Amino acid sequence: MTDVIPGFHAVVPAGGAGTRLWPLSRAGAPKFLHDLTGTGRTLLQGTVDRLLPLTGDGGVMVVTGARHRAAVQAQLPEVRPQDVLAEPSPRDSMAAIGLAAAVLEQRHGDVVLGSFAADQVIDGAQEFGRAVREGVEAARAGYVVTVGIAATGPSTAFGYVRSGAPLGVEGAPGVRHAQGFTEKPDAETAAEYLATGEYRWNAGMFIVRARTLLDHLATQLPTLHDGLREIAAVWDTPQRDEVLDRVWPTLTRIAIDHAIAEPVAAAGGVAVVPGDFTWDDVGDFASLAELLPAQSDASGRTLGEESLVLRIDADGTLVVPSSGRAVTVIGVPGAVVVDTPDALLVTTLERAQQVKAGVDGWRERGRDDLL
Amino acid sequence: MTDVIPGFHAVVPAGGAGTRLWPLSRAGAPKFLHDLTGTGRTLLQGTVDRLLPLTGDGGVMVVTGARHRAAVQAQLPEVRPQDVLAEPSPRDSMAAIGLAAAVLEQRHGDVVLGSFAADQVIDGAQEFGRAVREGVEAARAGYVVTVGIAATGPSTAFGYVRSGAPLGVEGAPGVRHAQGFTEKPDAETAAEYLATGEYRWNAGMFIVRARTLLDHLATQLPTLHDGLREIAAVWDTPQRDEVLDRVWPTLTRIAIDHAIAEPVAAAGGVAVVPGDFTWDDVGDFASLAELLPAQSDASGRTLGEESLVLRIDADGTLVVPSSGRAVTVIGVPGAVVVDTPDALLVTTLERAQQVKAGVDGWRERGRDDLL
Repeated sequence: MTDVIPGFHAVVPAGGAGTRLWPLSRAGAPKFLHDLTGTGRTLLQGTVDRLLPLTGDGGVMVVTGARHRAAVQAQLPEVRPQDVLAEPSPRDSMAAIGLAAAVLEQRHGDVVLGSFAADQVIDGAQEFGRAVREGVEAARAGYVVTVGIAATGPSTAFGYVRSGAPLGVEGAPGVRHAQGFTEKPDAETAAEYLATGEYRWNAGMFIVRARTLLDHLATQLPTLHDGLREIAAVWDTPQRDEVLDRVWPTLTRIAIDHAIAEPVAAAGGVAVVPGDFTWDDVGDFASLAELLPAQSDASGRTLGEESLVLRIDADGTLVVPSSGRAVTVIGVPGAVVVDTPDALLVTTLERAQQVKAGVDGWRERGRDDLL
Repeated sequence: MTDVIPGFHAVVPAGGAGTRLWPLSRAGAPKFLHDLTGTGRTLLQGTVDRLLPLTGDGGVMVVTGARHRAAVQAQLPEVRPQDVLAEPSPRDSMAAIGLAAAVLEQRHGDVVLGSFAADQVIDGAQEFGRAVREGVEAARAGYVVTVGIAATGPSTAFGYVRSGAPLGVEGAPGVRHAQGFTEKPDAETAAEYLATGEYRWNAGMFIVRARTLLDHLATQLPTLHDGLREIAAVWDTPQRDEVLDRVWPTLTRIAIDHAIAEPVAAAGGVAVVPGDFTWDDVGDFASLAELLPAQSDASGRTLGEESLVLRIDADGTLVVPSSGRAVTVIGVPGAVVVDTPDALLVTTLERAQQVKAGVDGWRERGRDDLL
């Protein structure tokens, strides 16, 4: 099951500030560059570790912001420099993945590509490989394939994808037609979804032939398509910078979900491959806490050096002692304490989604050095 | 009312680790060396500022641990070096005040001394001066005089002193006999005390003639008395160190309350002068928070640079941003966040009395550098 999938390329969009994980994640050192699970590998490295056995050497392409290019390459010596595409400025996921598809098609022809964000955590490499393998078969048949994650509960933090009838593609027995996508629901709706047995979490993973993706893009957003093709045509030539400078700033900012997945699903062109592995997008500190191993005394979670943390009547606290200072928490169960050399955050697991407000607050005060 | 009181000397015991204010207060830099009220003067400096107008130049003597001597002298250029007595090791308040009394008697004869701890906060210098002035008159008449603070509520954090009949000493119309002292009561008892109108907070301030104090000590603890007299006799001679080294370690560790105030009160020798000024011993972070000015938006208190603190849904929080880092508190009303260069404390105003447990925890782990 861990054999290389012929003709399969992985694309890893490495973007997003991870604002809800501030001050651990910063604009200059976003979430994907950090080891958030204590494994010794960053989220980006973990993502590539998972993909290389499926693509083989030279089969993983990373798309990131120009300011992160050096950090990405330093973390990924196994990825060739030409396979790290640097965007001059953020243009959302459609431009990032579309650029990768166009460059891959330019270099290799109509390969199948799978896009997997750099800041997700997955447990279950074998099941992940199986799902991708099935997804590639469905992609070869012309579908835009999304991975639907088996929900472990009625989460309101994720979008959902609804499965329909089996696709009937050979080599992809579990793949079904996608009936559509939904945004993050309220708790009641999420529970109704799960009761039907038809809904899975939409992990934002897409597997698709390069030409299928570009053709859909040509139909839905022809200007964006033309711009990306124009850039890709000269990517491996001395004209790259000139064309990038001229064309990139004109590209439409849009997420691939809105640009392709939703309209194509409505037209019957999207399939769902079930992914029965553990998945999390580490969206906030509450999510991060659940990914960390419990302390032996079950009193909380620590990302970093446990000897730096003293908890007294502080069950369930998440502490990130990343400045090296001693952290003492007394009588604040469920606290989140993130200690970095220049910024300290004190909040609770319940308020984890509000951390962005702190970032906004410092921005308003002109403390861009903290963002 | 701010005239110098003839023959009056002030003694300032500057000791105690202020463990409940850790990590702001440390064994190496205890509470009295810090500006805890944002006035620009440390508690020690504030204490001396209050006393010098009553004693005149050269009338304030500080007793502190040898390790704090240099810091005390640096903070108090107005106090002559010979008026800073350094104890080789802590021997509790009776030895500290008794040593000062014996040295003062050796130098100046039977003066009246007033003992005022270095780590208290008082608002109302004029009323303080009036109380001391009356107390000195009663002390001249042979009483051990304690200052009874007008209670602002049924505190369970302070001991109480009960007043009896007027003393009838000329120049001290408000002074009454002390009927006795009580330890920190429970809330119900404290309320009963206040309802009688006879109880005041015992601030641990004593005004007494040097000889009265030493005579009581000779009766109650003759060995301690003899040891202190032996040391005082050579204090201003080259023999000081030799005698200190030999005698000091043998001195009984006891608080002046137990050594003198309680037994002498039982025998009718203690008087209470009412102190109708604002007083606090800054015993913990809850007490500290009440001493600090409220922010303009009433969202909390800051000891230090307000621009370093961002509060979101965090009313009533006390933040001490003393490392210079940006502190963000989201959704933890009543939090206490004390940020120092090597140690961070996160707790709540409600748990303020438990901070000592954190210090104990780090001691058990062998992190003496943090204490």
